[in-house]
Amino acid sequence: EDRISIQNQGNPYDNEPVRNLDFIERSKIPYNAEPHLTQLVEHFITPVELFYVRNHLPVPDIDINEYELEVDITSTGVSRTFSMNDLKTKFEKAGVTAVVMCGGNRRSEMNAVKEVRGLGWGGGACGNAIFTGVRLCDFLTAMGVKSDEKSHVILEGYDRDPTYTPYSASIPLSKALDPRGDVILAYEMNGEPLNRDHGFPLRCVVPGVVGSRQVKWLGRIIIGDVESDSHWQQNDYKSFSPSVDWDTVDFSKAPAIQHMPVTSAICSPNPDHHEIKFTADGKMEVKGYAYSGGGNKIIRVDVTWDQGKTWHPADLVQLEDGENVSAGRHYAWTLWNINVPVEKNQHYVEVWSKAVDSNYNCQPETFKNTWNLRGVVANAYSRIGINLK
Amino acid sequence: EDRISIQNQGNPYDNEPVRNLDFIERSKIPYNAEPHLTQLVEHFITPVELFYVRNHLPVPDIDINEYELEVDITSTGVSRTFSMNDLKTKFEKAGVTAVVMCGGNRRSEMNAVKEVRGLGWGGGACGNAIFTGVRLCDFLTAMGVKSDEKSHVILEGYDRDPTYTPYSASIPLSKALDPRGDVILAYEMNGEPLNRDHGFPLRCVVPGVVGSRQVKWLGRIIIGDVESDSHWQQNDYKSFSPSVDWDTVDFSKAPAIQHMPVTSAICSPNPDHHEIKFTADGKMEVKGYAYSGGGNKIIRVDVTWDQGKTWHPADLVQLEDGENVSAGRHYAWTLWNINVPVEKNQHYVEVWSKAVDSNYNCQPETFKNTWNLRGVVANAYSRIGINLK
Ligand SMILES: [Mo]
Ligand SMILES: [Mo]
Repeated sequence: EDRISIQNQGNPYDNEPVRNLDFIERSKIPYNAEPHLTQLVEHFITPVELFYVRNHLPVPDIDINEYELEVDITSTGVSRTFSMNDLKTKFEKAGVTAVVMCGGNRRSEMNAVKEVRGLGWGGGACGNAIFTGVRLCDFLTAMGVKSDEKSHVILEGYDRDPTYTPYSASIPLSKALDPRGDVILAYEMNGEPLNRDHGFPLRCVVPGVVGSRQVKWLGRIIIGDVESDSHWQQNDYKSFSPSVDWDTVDFSKAPAIQHMPVTSAICSPNPDHHEIKFTADGKMEVKGYAYSGGGNKIIRVDVTWDQGKTWHPADLVQLEDGENVSAGRHYAWTLWNINVPVEKNQHYVEVWSKAVDSNYNCQPETFKNTWNLRGVVANAYSRIGINLK
Repeated sequence: EDRISIQNQGNPYDNEPVRNLDFIERSKIPYNAEPHLTQLVEHFITPVELFYVRNHLPVPDIDINEYELEVDITSTGVSRTFSMNDLKTKFEKAGVTAVVMCGGNRRSEMNAVKEVRGLGWGGGACGNAIFTGVRLCDFLTAMGVKSDEKSHVILEGYDRDPTYTPYSASIPLSKALDPRGDVILAYEMNGEPLNRDHGFPLRCVVPGVVGSRQVKWLGRIIIGDVESDSHWQQNDYKSFSPSVDWDTVDFSKAPAIQHMPVTSAICSPNPDHHEIKFTADGKMEVKGYAYSGGGNKIIRVDVTWDQGKTWHPADLVQLEDGENVSAGRHYAWTLWNINVPVEKNQHYVEVWSKAVDSNYNCQPETFKNTWNLRGVVANAYSRIGINLK
């Protein structure tokens, strides 16, 4: 008689996917984990099993045959639903190679300067994958949505909090409708159906934009004239002046993070793993990634091993300009490597990296002057100290 | 009999416009000059007589009745010319409020760290004006130009060097065709016809992009599959790693500056002018501007007067979001002001500013680590030291 309410009292985390990953867990419930940096940087396309997982709520368990995507256009009152079969058969299949990066990536480095609130991410809360599905601009244009500078696209997930409120975030309509924005309703990641942790069966991939807007388990799209009113859009994923504390913060005063700023991270060697590789002539091999949001290309990664007295451009691995990669559409990351000379008797070396993007924006030097209470957009120079003996 | 060649041997700088400006000259031939910063920051819309002038060559003297704009589309072979009357009557009139900023703005501050080559600009090599004319996207679309990720728009001026080669620069076609890119073939500046120093009768205004691409005295537009081969596109207006010097520089290895990075400048008080204003309660009034290229909005300007121990967000004056100003289309600058407390007996105060844009990119702390041999994109923190007594 009371079966439904008894079911509802079950542990919402009883049905998480089986995970068998060599990950660094940042929280078990909800599940949040990142790969070891030395592994992350071994692949230009991040394998799914090395792609960080950032869940805000329990993972939905969706039957693909019952799956529905609802679309509501506030201005015209149009409301429609699509099955997965509709998405796969009624629209051209398209893809993008893009980074998804958590707004809290590298937070632990900012936390080291002064405590911040949030999951203690290292530099592994990002990955670079091929996402395939339906172009959101095609989809919305087919629905009759017209360009409008004031509208937003609200994206709701099937993941819900204890009050049954779904995870939700929004992006500007201009980004969604821009053919060069490359927003994808993705049902595949690296050529395979999304797995449950990555949003099965559908994730909205918003290249160049912070991970929290790239809603997984996508259930509903609403076109309207306001941003999402969710906690994550309004009272999280925003940055403030270093002097703003939890007594004085006013979340309404800062814009929601959309495009991510330029960043880089030294991934190998990693002080936590003591794996140092040397070239035949005794140089230390250093590798990392660099990325800038908004479609901006990484044009240079400068590395120093003498506290900035001399800077040395690293070798870059990145997608070449072509039909789908061009000025303003560099949504993939750049891997980089450089060999650092060390003396025979040297005990210690400190290495810093800083990336420069196609707008000639560069990383700030320190976390001290960009510190913010939430520890987001932590993009200062990457610095590692390595004990050589 | 030899009249033409005798004329050609005349001084090409004999026919410069009459200038009667309270400007700081950076070079007389060609004419380059900027306003005093205290005056610059008094106006949200920069009056033409306070708008910096950056000429690379002698100023053309163009008869508007004989003026022609030539357009050549390489792929289709289409070539057409337009009179000023054609431009004014055949296309809708449109405008944009936008900054033009020289790539060398604030170079003198970078030069203070270590010598660079170039005109010794202060922070006044920028201005914010209303430019009106024909939208380049309308114009090119009417000419049958289609979107193409690999093409460039070459812009040639009527200004020519001694070998009769015109000033020339280029922008990606994607920027030119983007309705949200707001590129304007401008015949008016602040509601008046352009004056000679600002490109009479036509300047291509490319919002969010470095000044050197915003070609004055526009004579020819070429759509093709390569950038301009001009000196200014290929071997100037590029930035390099701090360790690159004139012996090692390879200009082919860096992209031409297009979008400008985030910057700010403290304009008043100005240590060179000794004009310090105080509020009734004895605080020092500090004013400046902030700007980010690529249409990015300034979301915060942080100011410190204790070397970064505490940061204080300034009050901002900027355009409100509306039909022509919206996410990604913030092409105007932001003026800012803050009142700095000083002690009664204080002899000296040092003030720093740093701006943050809507991508949460921020200025680098020092010119030391972003130094480049050409002294461009000099966007580190603005720092002034003021003697109070
Ligand atoms: Mo995130
Ligand atoms: Mo310039």
